Amino acid sequence: MESRFNSQLLERAVSELSKLPGIGRKTALRLALHLLRKDPEEAHDLGEAIISMRDNISYCHRCHNISEEETCPICGDSRRDQKCICVVENVRDVITIEATHQFHGLYHVLGGLISPLDGIGPSDLEIQSLVDRVSQEGIEEVILALSPTIEGDTTNFYIFRKLSDQDVKVTVLARGLSVGNELEYADELTLGKSIQNRIPFT
Amino acid sequence: MESRFNSQLLERAVSELSKLPGIGRKTALRLALHLLRKDPEEAHDLGEAIISMRDNISYCHRCHNISEEETCPICGDSRRDQKCICVVENVRDVITIEATHQFHGLYHVLGGLISPLDGIGPSDLEIQSLVDRVSQEGIEEVILALSPTIEGDTTNFYIFRKLSDQDVKVTVLARGLSVGNELEYADELTLGKSIQNRIPFT
Repeated sequence: MESRFNSQLLERAVSELSKLPGIGRKTALRLALHLLRKDPEEAHDLGEAIISMRDNISYCHRCHNISEEETCPICGDSRRDQKCICVVENVRDVITIEATHQFHGLYHVLGGLISPLDGIGPSDLEIQSLVDRVSQEGIEEVILALSPTIEGDTTNFYIFRKLSDQDVKVTVLARGLSVGNELEYADELTLGKSIQNRIPFT
Repeated sequence: MESRFNSQLLERAVSELSKLPGIGRKTALRLALHLLRKDPEEAHDLGEAIISMRDNISYCHRCHNISEEETCPICGDSRRDQKCICVVENVRDVITIEATHQFHGLYHVLGGLISPLDGIGPSDLEIQSLVDRVSQEGIEEVILALSPTIEGDTTNFYIFRKLSDQDVKVTVLARGLSVGNELEYADELTLGKSIQNRIPFT
């Protein structure tokens, strides 16, 4: 069987690459031809990194963040505050928050947001396991760090209700002006929130 | 050593993915997390396809197109016109022209265009090997199928001069209106060329 590319191997690589999100066949071909021009080591490094990552990374049984062990390094770090959980939508948000160096507690990755339109209900997410953790681990504060969208707000509210019979403080990330942005470019909702929630000038 | 991602394996995969052209660290992370969510088979298929492609594809010694054998399937196809060579910039252009099903001769891949600003001269390209092929293989027609840019025109002219002492017809792809485009949107240069090079209505 002859492929469009006169090479089954190229055809296969392009077809696998184009399964990645945001990568069409044209881009996949560009990437494949790039790898063909480079040293063989580069293709080996890439291919092996992908396989080894997939084979050896799974999810932390406690917070559902990615982890090479049963328990992730964050959950296993005794220097972190074991009484405070930051609830995030996905693994990327953990990385984003860690990059701020402003949070020293644990995480809980929901794996998505409640979105009836997309058919995602509470039972599709790690919400019950959060509720269980809060009671079993004697958590004192749950920080809701979901995106300020309709889905995020819905999920926040659902979790808040689920936790209402437990003795735990539930907080949410502050809405306000983006640092470095001009006041006149802030949208009205955000500006309104930042007036309501103004804080003492220290 | 602890990485930004709390996983050396993820860090390594992201770093390898972000070496690909047009893929930054954020996109690389998105791709890696996508693979982590999918079946392990998908990551294996991708990684192995990349490695196997790189290990088994090299370049045709005759036309410099990619090939799994010493001679590519196009050069090795006796049904194709062995007296006509289509000169292209790169491997992608071979694929593009093959997709038209309008060319039945052989190819010659230059590996780039003459571009003094980028430091690419004739000796960096497969031009001498083209001149040798034309004389040794008794080629009757050379079709210059380079992009209609300054670099393409410069390269066309250089090759034309190099072939001037050989008994070979040198042609160039027609410049004219794009099929399906409205006349009023054609640029003046293209429209001018298409008037100069008008053809009998059949």
